[in-house]
Amino acid sequence: MSRFFSQKYKNLKAYTPGEQPRDMQYIKLNTNESPYPPSPAVAEAVAREAKKLALYSDPECTELVAEAARVFGVGADRILMTNGSDEILNFAFMAFCDKEHPVVFPDITYGFYPVFAELNGIPYEKIPLKDDFSIDAADYIGIHKNIVIANPNAPTGLTLSLTEIERIVASNPDNIVVIDEAYVDFGGESAIPLTDKYENLLVTQTFSKSRSMAGARLGFGIGAPSLIADLQTIKYSTNPYNVNRMTAAAGAAALRENDYYMENCKRIVETREYTKNALEALGFFVTDSKANFLFAGSDRIDGDTLYRELKKRGVLVRHFSTEPIAQFNRITVGTKEQMDVFLAKTKEILKETAQNENR
Amino acid sequence: MSRFFSQKYKNLKAYTPGEQPRDMQYIKLNTNESPYPPSPAVAEAVAREAKKLALYSDPECTELVAEAARVFGVGADRILMTNGSDEILNFAFMAFCDKEHPVVFPDITYGFYPVFAELNGIPYEKIPLKDDFSIDAADYIGIHKNIVIANPNAPTGLTLSLTEIERIVASNPDNIVVIDEAYVDFGGESAIPLTDKYENLLVTQTFSKSRSMAGARLGFGIGAPSLIADLQTIKYSTNPYNVNRMTAAAGAAALRENDYYMENCKRIVETREYTKNALEALGFFVTDSKANFLFAGSDRIDGDTLYRELKKRGVLVRHFSTEPIAQFNRITVGTKEQMDVFLAKTKEILKETAQNENR
Repeated sequence: MSRFFSQKYKNLKAYTPGEQPRDMQYIKLNTNESPYPPSPAVAEAVAREAKKLALYSDPECTELVAEAARVFGVGADRILMTNGSDEILNFAFMAFCDKEHPVVFPDITYGFYPVFAELNGIPYEKIPLKDDFSIDAADYIGIHKNIVIANPNAPTGLTLSLTEIERIVASNPDNIVVIDEAYVDFGGESAIPLTDKYENLLVTQTFSKSRSMAGARLGFGIGAPSLIADLQTIKYSTNPYNVNRMTAAAGAAALRENDYYMENCKRIVETREYTKNALEALGFFVTDSKANFLFAGSDRIDGDTLYRELKKRGVLVRHFSTEPIAQFNRITVGTKEQMDVFLAKTKEILKETAQNENR
Repeated sequence: MSRFFSQKYKNLKAYTPGEQPRDMQYIKLNTNESPYPPSPAVAEAVAREAKKLALYSDPECTELVAEAARVFGVGADRILMTNGSDEILNFAFMAFCDKEHPVVFPDITYGFYPVFAELNGIPYEKIPLKDDFSIDAADYIGIHKNIVIANPNAPTGLTLSLTEIERIVASNPDNIVVIDEAYVDFGGESAIPLTDKYENLLVTQTFSKSRSMAGARLGFGIGAPSLIADLQTIKYSTNPYNVNRMTAAAGAAALRENDYYMENCKRIVETREYTKNALEALGFFVTDSKANFLFAGSDRIDGDTLYRELKKRGVLVRHFSTEPIAQFNRITVGTKEQMDVFLAKTKEILKETAQNENR
C-alpha cells in the first residue's frame, strides 16, 4: 500500500479470482466456464466489429438491448448492459446502499458481495445458511434491509423457489432485493417476470456461463425503469462506453442463437447429474446443484488435499479454505469426457489416500 | 430518480458523451476518433480470441502489459490496463482522493473530472485557465492538493512543457498528480519518464485516439509500483476481468505495430496544421493545438450556430455551451478529404450568415 492510498480502504480485501496457472495445460473445472465454444455467429459478428474499432461503441448498446428485450420478454427501458455482471452488481451496491441503507446476504455465497460492500463503505451483515447449506427464505422476510441473493447460490448450487423469492421481495417493499442469476440457465427459475410487478427487484445475469462468453465480459441487470435509470446515472458517471463494440456485437449474436446455448445448457445439466451420481457412488456428499458446477465433499479425504492432488494430476477445481465449507470442492461441469478424467483421477486419489492411511 | 437511489448522489450530474446520431451518415469530427482504421494485425488477433471467448480473460493482461512495458520503456509492475482510460481515471480518484484529500483541475478541461469527484464524494476546486486558454503552471506549484491535468488539455489542445509538469509534481510531494495524456501522441511530451523519479506521479493514456481503438475500450496508467498496487486493489475490488480477451489481444497487436500508428499520428498532425492555417485564413482564432483536434472560434459567427449549421450539412463537430468557450467549437482532425469538406461547408456557412446580416 502506498502512503497515498485513501484510509477509507484500509480494511479493503480485494476479491481473488480463480487461479489461471500457466505451468501446464489443465482440465479447467475451477471457474465455471462453459466447455462449449460460442456459436460461430459470434465470431462472425466480432470480425465485422474488429474493422470498426476506430469508432466509439454505442453507449446505449441499442442493438444488444433490443435482442435482450426480445429474448427476456421485457421492455428495453428495463435493461442495462455492463462489463460483466460484476459491474452491474457493483453499480447496484453503489446506487442503492449506503451508511443508512445496509445490505445483507448469505454467509456462504459469491465472495464478491462483501468486497463491493467494503469498497463502497456500506455496512453489511452475513446471514448463515442452514446446516444443509440451503438459504432459509424466512431469514429474509420483512427484514427491511437491502438484500443480495445468488439464485442458484454459489458455491452450493442450491436454489430458492420463485415463490420464496417473491415473498422476500414483497415483504421488503422499501428496500432493494438483488437476485444474482449468474447460474439460472442450468435449472433455476428466473425472477425476471417478477420485475414487472415489484419496483424494488433487480435481477442480474451474465453471458459468462450459459452463453460461453466469460472472456468477452458481458452482464446485465433487469428491473423497473426507475431502477435502471438510477443505474444508468452511475454508469454515465463511471464509464459511459463500458461495453466495447466487439462484446456488444458478440452478445447480440449470442442472443440470436439462443437455442444453441440452451441446448448446451441441457447437455451440461445431463453431465452434471451423471457426475453427481458417480461422486455419490464414491461416497461424496453432493448438494442438489442447479448450476453448472457441483459442490462435493467426503469424509474419506480432506477438501484441500483433494484439490491439491487433482491439480498435480492436471485437473483444476476450486477450493475455498473458509469454514464450514473447507471440506468441499466446487467442480465446474465440463464435457462428459472431462468429467470422466476428473472422476478417474478422484478414484485414483481416494485409493492412494486409503493405502497411505493403512500403512 | 427512484425512491431507492442513494442520497449521496443527489447532486450527481452524469457525463454526457458526444452525440452519436443515427438519422444520417455524418462526417464525424466530434469525438476525437482516429480517421484511420486499426492495423490489419489487430483484426487478426481479435479473430483468434473470438474463438476462445468461453474462457475468462487473463486478469493481469500479461501479454498486453509486456508489450506496453517494451514500447513505453517501463517495468511491467508500473502498468495497469483498464476498460478505457475513464476507468483508470476513476480508479485514481477513488484510490487517492477523499474528503481529507481534495482534488484540483483546470476549469476548462475534460468534463469527466468533476463527475468522478462528485461520484466519489471528493471535494474539488477548479482553477481558471489564463485568458489565452493556457494552464498557468504557477497555479499548481506547491498547492498540496491532488491534481489532475490533461496534457495536452481538452478541448483547447494546449500543452504544458515537461519542465512545468516536473515542477508541479516535485512541489507537491505529498499529493498525487495525475497527467492525463489521452492526446499526447499528436505533439505533446509524455511524462512517463518522470514516473521513475517521482512516486506521486500517475500518467494515464488511452488506445482510443492515436491507436484507433475507441470502440475496443483500452486505457492504462503508468506510475510507481506502489501506486499501481493501490490501483490494482481497487480493480480487484471492482472488476478483476475489466479488460476482455478481444481488447487485450487487440491492444497487444497494436503495440507490436507501433510504427503504423505513429505514422498515422504524423499524418494527423500534418492535416491539423493544414486545417488550422485554412481556418485562420477564414478569420478564426485557433489555439496552438498539439492534439488530434482543433479548437476554433470566430467573431463572424456564433459557436452554437456554426455547430448547428455544420450538422445540417452533414458535418458533426463538438460544441460546449459553457462560458468562456461557448464561442468555440472542437473539431476532430480527420482525413484531409474530410477536413476539406468541413472547410468548404464552413466557408459556405460564413458566406450565408454574412448575406443574412446584410439584408
